[in-house]
Order: sequence, then structure tokens, then C-alpha cells
Amino acid sequence: MKFICTQENLNKGLIIVSHIAGRSATLPILNNVLIKVSGGVISLSTTNLEIGITAKIRGKVTKEGEFTVQAKLIADYINLLPKENIELDLEEQTLFIKCDNYKTSIKGVSANDFPLIPALDERESVNLKAGDLKNALAQVMFAVAVDESRPEISGVLFSFSGKNLVIAGTDSYRLAERKIGLIGEYPGERKLIIPLRTLQEVYRILAESEDEALNILINDNQILFKFNEEISLTSRLVEGQYPDYQQIIPQESRTQAKVKTAELARVVKSASLFCKPGINDVKLSFDPAKGEITVSSVNSAVGENKVVVAAETTGEKNEVVFNYRYLLDGLNNLDSEEALLGLISDSAPGLLKPAGNQNYLYVIMPIRQ
Amino acid sequence: MKFICTQENLNKGLIIVSHIAGRSATLPILNNVLIKVSGGVISLSTTNLEIGITAKIRGKVTKEGEFTVQAKLIADYINLLPKENIELDLEEQTLFIKCDNYKTSIKGVSANDFPLIPALDERESVNLKAGDLKNALAQVMFAVAVDESRPEISGVLFSFSGKNLVIAGTDSYRLAERKIGLIGEYPGERKLIIPLRTLQEVYRILAESEDEALNILINDNQILFKFNEEISLTSRLVEGQYPDYQQIIPQESRTQAKVKTAELARVVKSASLFCKPGINDVKLSFDPAKGEITVSSVNSAVGENKVVVAAETTGEKNEVVFNYRYLLDGLNNLDSEEALLGLISDSAPGLLKPAGNQNYLYVIMPIRQ
Repeated sequence: MKFICTQENLNKGLIIVSHIAGRSATLPILNNVLIKVSGGVISLSTTNLEIGITAKIRGKVTKEGEFTVQAKLIADYINLLPKENIELDLEEQTLFIKCDNYKTSIKGVSANDFPLIPALDERESVNLKAGDLKNALAQVMFAVAVDESRPEISGVLFSFSGKNLVIAGTDSYRLAERKIGLIGEYPGERKLIIPLRTLQEVYRILAESEDEALNILINDNQILFKFNEEISLTSRLVEGQYPDYQQIIPQESRTQAKVKTAELARVVKSASLFCKPGINDVKLSFDPAKGEITVSSVNSAVGENKVVVAAETTGEKNEVVFNYRYLLDGLNNLDSEEALLGLISDSAPGLLKPAGNQNYLYVIMPIRQ
Repeated sequence: MKFICTQENLNKGLIIVSHIAGRSATLPILNNVLIKVSGGVISLSTTNLEIGITAKIRGKVTKEGEFTVQAKLIADYINLLPKENIELDLEEQTLFIKCDNYKTSIKGVSANDFPLIPALDERESVNLKAGDLKNALAQVMFAVAVDESRPEISGVLFSFSGKNLVIAGTDSYRLAERKIGLIGEYPGERKLIIPLRTLQEVYRILAESEDEALNILINDNQILFKFNEEISLTSRLVEGQYPDYQQIIPQESRTQAKVKTAELARVVKSASLFCKPGINDVKLSFDPAKGEITVSSVNSAVGENKVVVAAETTGEKNEVVFNYRYLLDGLNNLDSEEALLGLISDSAPGLLKPAGNQNYLYVIMPIRQ
């Protein structure tokens, strides 16, 4: 194997793929990146057995072949090189790298031992806007907690139906749901559970690339995200049935309030300073007659804090106690200047939505006093 | 005690003083800030028994008095408040704070238990430029390591003499020394060892304030840094004799090289990737005939790296092995485009200096092979 490419191209590809390469002692080949030159195409691949990422890079090929070397080492090293042409040349079990006045040799392992990243057929394919998926993931992923005992909610639910994709995540204390439109249409309905770690990688690649559209291929147990002609990410899907979360979304409310999102977030943060250590209770009292919400917390050892926030409040007088972290998470991800809060009672889930936008909702379980 | 001040003033003062307030369980009053209103002056003070910081703030005093409350809590809280006037009112053992729609009460402890921060007389006083001290501290402090068994080198040496101040620090593997000029003159000579922690606080305050000059008062066991009329920091001095470090500074060299600082730093970083785990050896080979330095490292399990850097080299052919971290620290703090390297042999300390500037030097002990 022998080829020449620019430092920029090789560096960009290695940054994309090296992130999931581990420091595994039990299966050390998983720490490596597979560098493969075949049919005139140079590709870099890594896998952690759950996720596989491949990046193709442009370059001038002299000799085909394949080899694997430590992904973090070569990524860190290439990142430090000057922006010049780099020559990579495999001799025996050593990769020789030359760039300007830098000369390096890296020992590696034969590509024969590298796990195969499964190929997906194009039977089921959908397209969507990269920016839409990126925003939607940011609004949902934070609500998911990885819990080995409940693998189905350790993933994020993707529900395709016609022109729509609904993305939902929960850790059973709060739930986030975001709707986005597809480019084109999905024929019929399909529900998938995608591992959180996979979507964190998808999000990372979306944040680094400037692509406008994204293609998704779906097979029985695998999904493939194709960011452009160069970068693709394959992942297994989570088996199992996602809980029917629709039933916990409140369909009505006895008290409704519209409030400035950033102001409520600041007030909740100030109340959080007065929570008892390890206890995250913050009380919200709604007073429609006065048009205000009072946010309060007490730690008898330290003091108490009470802040009145102006809010367009309708319906009944009401109060509820939330974990301030969950409330803050919701407010910080609402992506709208004004927030709508809907409440039934102090023992029913509360509903948080952006004002003037029906594409997002966030449900928080109350803390019973 | 009762007064009104702006959120900006109180916030600024609390940020300055709250940093050294601890989370001490054995002496909980050290977690508190002393708020004192006396003679129409509002002051905030904290201490960790080694360092004391006082910030005066402007405000409208209604009633004098003093009280202490948790420093981190009130600092975090005030930081979140809107930029409005804040009213602080002490009733019994509780401080009531009102600002806009925010109402808080914080329980505290009587000021009687708060340790006294010693006052210094103005007998010995020097003035210097704030920016000079800030830069000098950055160039010296990184070389100091806190070692309980050797308290004298766990501090930084300040040597005053006439119009000059020489600041030196070492961890016995490397040494940094910086000279700065005083405003005015110190009558005679004086050597002080100042705790590293004290200077870290001084540096932090210098980085946050925009003062141009700085006044230092020196007493037998105490030093006082007066940043302006509002902020002062008092610290104990370290007892003991600082080692006579002058004798380890090489007075001559057999090989001299002038090299681009950033380029050498990048090359050393690339070589560091190929060091054996836990071993930080990087070899520098000087070749005056070719006008170059070769930087190399080998980890037989991983590979090797060799980079040739152009350098104006004079004197003998020579080589030396350094800990790459110490070399990088020196290069990163040199503050000049070109670096001068002086070498006697592979078993003598190496000397690093900024080109065209005599105010800084950095000595590194070699690693003997």
C-alpha cells in the first residue's frame, strides 16, 4: 500500500473516524483504524462492534493494499503535521509516514483481523435535512440515560410515518419528543430504537460537517447514516419494544402559563442554590389571579429563596414540585423565547412546550411531597 | 447592618474574595465571607488562614454592622441576580437580600468567630507595573511543584535589589527565572519566599482587574499586595532558605542553537506521541555542520519518529535527552518567536532563553541514558 494525500484530507478523515476507536485491552484491534486502498479509493474505518464509521479521502494511489494502526496515535500525529502532502508507505508490518521534515514509522497489525463492518442494501431509504436532525437530536438525547437493565429506553425512538419522523427519548423521569419533516416520504410506518452512543456520534459528525442533506438506510437490525459520498456510519439497532409513551403525555391541563424561557431558567437556577444537598426539589406555585409564578426552595440549614416571575397564567391556582435539573434541562433545550407550561395537579406529569411551535414537547414527572 | 449596592459591584467583589473560601468541615467559618460595614465603608473578606483577601465595595449604608455567610452560596446567588440595586439587611442571624423580584434569606454566623486578617505597616513598600508582574508570574509559576517535604522550594523566590525584582521557581527538575523592573527603588536587598497558592491568587486578581500599578508591603512574616484602593491580599511568607540556584545555571555552552520556538514545540509534541508510556524521553541531536537539530523518540512497541528542524547551530556536535514535558513547558512560556538553546553535554543542565531578550531563562536537567 502506498499513497500521497494532503494533511488536511487525512486529518479530517482521521478526526471523524478515530473518535470511536477505543483503548480496548481485550480486543486491541478495535483501537486501530483500518486504512484501505482498493479500486483507487482510500478509506479509513473504525468500529467498536456496535458502530462502524468509514471516511473516504482523496489522494494519489501508487499501490493498493490495507493495514491497521493505532487510531488515536495516527490521528494525534497527523493533526500535528504541517499542511503539506503526506506520503504513506507500507513495508512489512510498518507504516512509513513522510511529510516535509517529519519522518515516522508506525507498527501495526494486518487488516485480516479487522472486524467486518456490515454493508446495508438500499431497500429502505429516507432522506432528511442534516440541520433538522442535528437540532432534533440536541432536543431529545439529553433526556436519555443509559441503563443496562432497560436497553429499550437506553436508546432513542425514531418513528417514521409518511412525511414525518418523530424522535423520542426518556429516562422515565422526563420525556422529550421532537417532530421533523422528511425530504420525500417513508412508505408506511416504521419504529426503530437507535443506541444513544450511535446518535452521539451522528450528532458529532453533523456538527463537524457542513452537509445539507443526509441519507438513512434501514435494514432489519442495522441502520446506516450516509452524510455524503465520503462519510458513512453503520450501527446495530436496539431490539425490543419501546414503551407506549403517548399515554403519559398530558392531554389536558387545569393551569396554563406562558413565561419567558430564559427568565424562568435563571430563577430556577437561583432557587437550586438553596436546595438541600442531594435533594433537587424546587416548588412552582401558579397564581392566575395575580398573573405570576412563584419559584421557591428552602434548606432550613442555609436559608430560603423565593422569586416571583410574571406569567400569563390561566385556569386554576396550582402548585407542583419538580427536580430543578430536569426542569432546567427542558427550559435550556426549548429553543424558543417563551415557554408554555401546562399543569394538572401536584401529582400528575407537567408539560413544557415552546410557545408558537407544535414540534416539541417535554414532560416532567412531579416530585410528590 | 443594612445597605444598598449595585449587583455589579457586589458581584465583582464576591468573585474576587470567594475563590479562597473553602469547604472546610473542621473550621466551617473559613467557608464564609465576612461582610462588614464600618465608617461608611462596605468590605468583603475571606481567609484560608494562609491568605486573606479584602474587597471594598461602594454602596449606600443605612446601618453599620458585620456578619458572615457562606461565600460560595452568596457569590453564586448574587451572580445570577439581574443588574439592579440589591438591598442587604441583617436581622438576628439571617441576612435578607432583595433585588427586583428576588427575595432571599441566608442564615449565617456571627462575625465574632471570623479570624483576624493581619494588618501590615507601611515601613517597607515597593511599587511595580501590574502587567509586568502578571507576565513574570506566568513565566515562573509553572515550574514550581508543591512538595510538603521541601516547603522552601514549594514557594517562589522574590529577590528585591535596587531597581530590580528577580522572580525564580523550581521543582528541582527545571528552573525558571524572570527579571522585572520596579517603579522606584527598593532600599537595599531582600529575599522572600512567597507560597505558590498566594501567587496563583495574585495572578487571578491581576488577570481580572485592569489596574496599571501595584503596591507591595513587606513585613517580617507577611506580605500585602494592594491592587488598588479596593482590593488587598495578605499572605504569610514561607520560612527557610531558598537554595542557591545560581550555581546550576550554566555559565557557558559547547553547542548553541537558535530555532523557531513554535516549530520546535510542535516537533517535540509530535515526538512525545512515540514515547514509551510513563517515560517522557525525547532526544535532541545538534549538528552544527548541517545547521539542524534532529528531535527523535522511539517506542519499540509502536514505532519511531524523527524530525529535522532547521537551526542556526554553532559549536560542537552534541546530543541530550530531555523530559518532553519540561522542554515544552519552557518553549510554551518563552514569549518570543525564536529560542536560544545552550548545551554543554548530555549530562549537564541545558539552558533555554528567548532570543534578543535577557530578562528570562529556563534551565532543564537532562535525562542520563
